[in-house]
Amino acid sequence: MRILVTGFDPFEHEPINPSWEAVRRLPDKVSDAEIIKVQIPTSFARSPEFVRDAILRHDPDVVVSVGQAGGRFGINPERVAINLDDGRIADNDGYQPIDTPIRADGPTAYFSSLPVKAMVTAIRAAGIPAAVSNTAGTYVCNHIMYQILYMIDREFPGKRGGFVHVPYIAQQVTDKPNQPALSVDDLVTALTSAMAAIVEYRDKPDEHSVGGATH
Amino acid sequence: MRILVTGFDPFEHEPINPSWEAVRRLPDKVSDAEIIKVQIPTSFARSPEFVRDAILRHDPDVVVSVGQAGGRFGINPERVAINLDDGRIADNDGYQPIDTPIRADGPTAYFSSLPVKAMVTAIRAAGIPAAVSNTAGTYVCNHIMYQILYMIDREFPGKRGGFVHVPYIAQQVTDKPNQPALSVDDLVTALTSAMAAIVEYRDKPDEHSVGGATH
Amino acid sequence: MRILVTGFDPFEHEPINPSWEAVRRLPDKVSDAEIIKVQIPTSFARSPEFVRDAILRHDPDVVVSVGQAGGRFGINPERVAINLDDGRIADNDGYQPIDTPIRADGPTAYFSSLPVKAMVTAIRAAGIPAAVSNTAGTYVCNHIMYQILYMIDREFPGKRGGFVHVPYIAQQVTDKPNQPALSVDDLVTALTSAMAAIVEYRDKPDEHSVGGATH
Amino acid sequence: MRILVTGFDPFEHEPINPSWEAVRRLPDKVSDAEIIKVQIPTSFARSPEFVRDAILRHDPDVVVSVGQAGGRFGINPERVAINLDDGRIADNDGYQPIDTPIRADGPTAYFSSLPVKAMVTAIRAAGIPAAVSNTAGTYVCNHIMYQILYMIDREFPGKRGGFVHVPYIAQQVTDKPNQPALSVDDLVTALTSAMAAIVEYRDKPDEHSVGGATH
Repeated sequence: MRILVTGFDPFEHEPINPSWEAVRRLPDKVSDAEIIKVQIPTSFARSPEFVRDAILRHDPDVVVSVGQAGGRFGINPERVAINLDDGRIADNDGYQPIDTPIRADGPTAYFSSLPVKAMVTAIRAAGIPAAVSNTAGTYVCNHIMYQILYMIDREFPGKRGGFVHVPYIAQQVTDKPNQPALSVDDLVTALTSAMAAIVEYRDKPDEHSVGGATH
Repeated sequence: MRILVTGFDPFEHEPINPSWEAVRRLPDKVSDAEIIKVQIPTSFARSPEFVRDAILRHDPDVVVSVGQAGGRFGINPERVAINLDDGRIADNDGYQPIDTPIRADGPTAYFSSLPVKAMVTAIRAAGIPAAVSNTAGTYVCNHIMYQILYMIDREFPGKRGGFVHVPYIAQQVTDKPNQPALSVDDLVTALTSAMAAIVEYRDKPDEHSVGGATH
Repeated sequence: MRILVTGFDPFEHEPINPSWEAVRRLPDKVSDAEIIKVQIPTSFARSPEFVRDAILRHDPDVVVSVGQAGGRFGINPERVAINLDDGRIADNDGYQPIDTPIRADGPTAYFSSLPVKAMVTAIRAAGIPAAVSNTAGTYVCNHIMYQILYMIDREFPGKRGGFVHVPYIAQQVTDKPNQPALSVDDLVTALTSAMAAIVEYRDKPDEHSVGGATH
Repeated sequence: MRILVTGFDPFEHEPINPSWEAVRRLPDKVSDAEIIKVQIPTSFARSPEFVRDAILRHDPDVVVSVGQAGGRFGINPERVAINLDDGRIADNDGYQPIDTPIRADGPTAYFSSLPVKAMVTAIRAAGIPAAVSNTAGTYVCNHIMYQILYMIDREFPGKRGGFVHVPYIAQQVTDKPNQPALSVDDLVTALTSAMAAIVEYRDKPDEHSVGGATH
């Protein structure tokens, strides 16, 4: 089994991106799965090309994209990607779409095909806070999650894909009052546990557990 | 023009529901639109029946459902409803679905057909905090939003529909430390402004303004 | 009985100050107490002069200063003022002290001589969130509270004094994401209830109730 | 030079206390200072006895007590301890004081005699969020800080003392939604940096830098 894991380069004044800091430190092997790590740009236009190239080169069974969610308290496997780009800020190419569909011929949304509940349980068991999230936002993170699931739908049937948001790491918040942060080691532990859950649930439905949100 | 506005009955130990407290105080007329107010139950099974009955009785042009989002800071027009029920708690009938599709034959999600950006602008102009939200959760609020948009899609073409989340009101948080709340008067002002925006934008596309979320 | 209540003028880019917006709307009479309302400047140097002048002119039994605490969720009667000025920002005169004692001959701190627990109970009973706070900060709010209690200690024995922090009001946070706010009407209701508690407890010790903070 | 550092045992349903988890992992030497680590009980009555015994046994130059502040985002050197016990909950002995002075013959408050600004600068330079706090609460943490400074004032002149609050560590918040947490390694790094600042500033006044709070 092979899992392609991507992390983003930094954006919006940050010198680092915790997603890539964590992804590049992942072990090369989790359970019996090979982990392939690729950095992708915070760019609406270019990030899908990077992922598609990596899929063609490595033929992974699973694609997991990881991104920064400053302000969140724990690790968030994302449940759903929506067919909409709406940038609060421009991306690293200076492009700022407003209320634009990602794919004119795509469905309104795709659900993650990763076992998000099992991933949350595994991350918590490793001592790191986690919860299923029901929005990946409307920026490049949601965009790449939608594009990955669209690619799988149209071009790479049989593969599974999804997205995980991670909080700031501590060094990013030393000058930001009251912003939650974890350590990069905790992010690595969390993502490794999530990968192990993906391997364990490869042939079975997601864990049946309470994890919804009233709003 | 006629706008059907629904509010929910109380749930989860709350003696009141701010959505109904605000909706029942709305004026009977906003701009040239008649406002019809209906209370619906916090029930996965029964809420859609209440809405459908009200649509059949009143033949509104627009259906706006309003619900409580404890912990949110402002008024949130919701952008999207997803085809999934996942209850953190049981509803008022004691029913707690886990990862269940709402409609087996429905799409993964529906976008609101209300002018959510214009509604946010109008609410802020009235002095009340507001933002577009990209998740209505996975409880009865998301459920009724999805069901309304499904009904419109299948049974009532030409109508428009959507959902607005409102925060706690002050009396609900006197014994809850560090929970944001607005006054019921502010909720009424906000919803009235949102209705005015719906009327104003009935024949034109939504306002083109920045209002996305990076995550 | 006569209660002098002060509110501040706006500071740090805010067009209004909720403390004065609320104070100027207070009734002229609460229970049998006359309420005298005075606006004071957000100035380390000048605010004590304004208060002293008002004390000399009106000879109040109680002095209550009210100030803005952006980011707090409810009404906070302050427990203690410390003998230290440490400005995160400059005051309205451009003065920014760092770690400077307020009164070289004063004690390290003064406790409020208002019935802070009874005030919290009264405000909550009126449906508004409230809690005793154990820090008034190190800016002009703490400064004026300390100066009032110092004046009472040295110059006006027999009078009582203290401070109440109030959150933002809704119109201040329309462009500030995730900041709590109450309505100005709720602030007026809360402060009126607090004044009533001050009158009720004028001749008895503060209410004996749980209201401490673990940190 | 010798620094006595204390951490607390667990309280209020927590299986561990991050203050002791961090303190017991501190190095035995920081700069040229010997670090002596002692666990003390979360008890109003007994914690001062433990500290006094340790002072008598080890004759430290500096006493730093460390405690848990669940809900805080970073490391907080405390500026001031007040002469008041007011328990939101009972301590580990079942004792819950309400509005009780700590020392009938003590001053209203003591300022920390540690270089709190320099400690914050050193912790941030190590990549961990930190800020001076102006309240240590009204529970056992404030109590021990007050008692240490009272002991130094009355019995151990020439010694310096103070208190540092630390947030939850990650494993404590896996089942607490939206609570900030750091890793135990980050706490150790932060406290070690703070100790180094204490050594560096032993013979000079605290750093002159902006670090006040408007409220």
